[in-house]
Amino acid sequence: MMKQQIDRLCGIINERLCKLIPAGNKLTDEVSQAAVYSLSGGGKRLRPILMMKFYEMCGGRETDKLTDIFCTIELVHTFSLIHDDLPCMDNDDYRRGRLSCHKAYPEAIALLAGDALSVLPFEIIADSAEKGIISYETAVKATQVLSKAIGIEGMIGGQVIDMLSENSDISEEILAELQRKKTGALISAACEMGCILANADEEKIILARKYADKLGLAFQIRDDILDVTGTFEELGKPVGSDKEQKKSTYVTLLGLEKAEQLCRELSQQAADILTGFNNSEFLVELTKALTDRRK
Amino acid sequence: MMKQQIDRLCGIINERLCKLIPAGNKLTDEVSQAAVYSLSGGGKRLRPILMMKFYEMCGGRETDKLTDIFCTIELVHTFSLIHDDLPCMDNDDYRRGRLSCHKAYPEAIALLAGDALSVLPFEIIADSAEKGIISYETAVKATQVLSKAIGIEGMIGGQVIDMLSENSDISEEILAELQRKKTGALISAACEMGCILANADEEKIILARKYADKLGLAFQIRDDILDVTGTFEELGKPVGSDKEQKKSTYVTLLGLEKAEQLCRELSQQAADILTGFNNSEFLVELTKALTDRRK
Repeated sequence: MMKQQIDRLCGIINERLCKLIPAGNKLTDEVSQAAVYSLSGGGKRLRPILMMKFYEMCGGRETDKLTDIFCTIELVHTFSLIHDDLPCMDNDDYRRGRLSCHKAYPEAIALLAGDALSVLPFEIIADSAEKGIISYETAVKATQVLSKAIGIEGMIGGQVIDMLSENSDISEEILAELQRKKTGALISAACEMGCILANADEEKIILARKYADKLGLAFQIRDDILDVTGTFEELGKPVGSDKEQKKSTYVTLLGLEKAEQLCRELSQQAADILTGFNNSEFLVELTKALTDRRK
Repeated sequence: MMKQQIDRLCGIINERLCKLIPAGNKLTDEVSQAAVYSLSGGGKRLRPILMMKFYEMCGGRETDKLTDIFCTIELVHTFSLIHDDLPCMDNDDYRRGRLSCHKAYPEAIALLAGDALSVLPFEIIADSAEKGIISYETAVKATQVLSKAIGIEGMIGGQVIDMLSENSDISEEILAELQRKKTGALISAACEMGCILANADEEKIILARKYADKLGLAFQIRDDILDVTGTFEELGKPVGSDKEQKKSTYVTLLGLEKAEQLCRELSQQAADILTGFNNSEFLVELTKALTDRRK
């Protein structure tokens, strides 16, 4: 039942996602193709689904009109993956079981595709306001949340900490900050933007941030666990890469059993926070499925 | 006289520019430093000055309050320079007489500093609206113009064409499209954003775009000429690099004399367009100085 619903939502997102990329012309086509390549590589579409569900849980009733804005957060996520995979960063040849962008396209094209995906969300949000789909004020607030989540105090800062902590032992405190910034900031922005799109009050926004904080951490711990217990076939990427890169993770810091326990607790706390919203059944179920996933 | 005025405006821009970068914390500090390094490397600050002057020529009277927004276009320009210099792009070790960002800092940090600079402008514009410095509508319109100028149909598309045309002969038509996108789009956005900030009418915006088109092309032709006639000391970068990279330029396509003539004509046409604005004396003089410059 829930799987069907997720598939339906992913379908809606996937349907729009690649159409958001300007085709360019004959000369610039390759960078559009590279962006579409990375966007169409699958993925859980967790962030747009979170934005959509928070929008609906805050009383928003025009879901159909806002698909492009829900997609913006996936554009940002994909930008971060493309740049993260580059040789000077993680140097990963595979992503979701396919060649990473800079292996399927020239490295410069991958870099520029990432750049394009980092800026396009702001164009989409502004265009939506110009078309009257959202108010100017809503567009500004959404832009503010999204840009801060990406910047030095958000995702990009997290990538810096991630790089610096490679091949070195870090404390649980630093690991938590790394996670909160590198993956947490965007998950939080997704939930918060959903509330903003529905003109929700500050109380709801605070709850959304708290939920995102728990979910993001639980999600990361599950990632760390799967890097130890998963298989290439399940994950679509090499397993054991954290250990190989001598990365500190929740598994290396806490051990498998404690990490598993913390993940379950956070998942439950996240689900509990959702009782502050109406019609939260789907997201409660999704939260548990995400933090209990096998891939 | 004009030099003094330019120095004063550059001073105002430089004073704010580096302060716009979030300091980060001890862990993320290096990426902030890298961004500040590239921002403080000098440069003509042409784009923020254009935005400021179009704002004033359209009747805007709150120049002092808008410095941060004028700076956004320089943040974008610097982002493009950092990414352009990367090994997978132009692989340039020097920029304005100093080491390029990825030579002064690790390559990954330079990449991330560029990423941060690409997104920060949208945060600054949104923050300005939240603080009531500009209206929500103005913020959305400025965001729209800026994001389109950066994207696949603007600057990033231009970088793609630039890469593809290396080591190959291209027509004057393709060279013109390359220039219009790679450098013209951002110059045009600067002028247009100035009009938008002053709530100028569509007529003024169209004139601003026409002016920017002429100026941008004249500026590029001058760049191509200086790559042949300039010295390392004057330019702060190796000369003759176009020839070395077998790039098609206005000089290789038209010859030095015709390029010089076209540059002068465009400069005059740009200056003529400015008669459609009040108080345009400074910008007329600047236009001529820019397209007649020796460095």
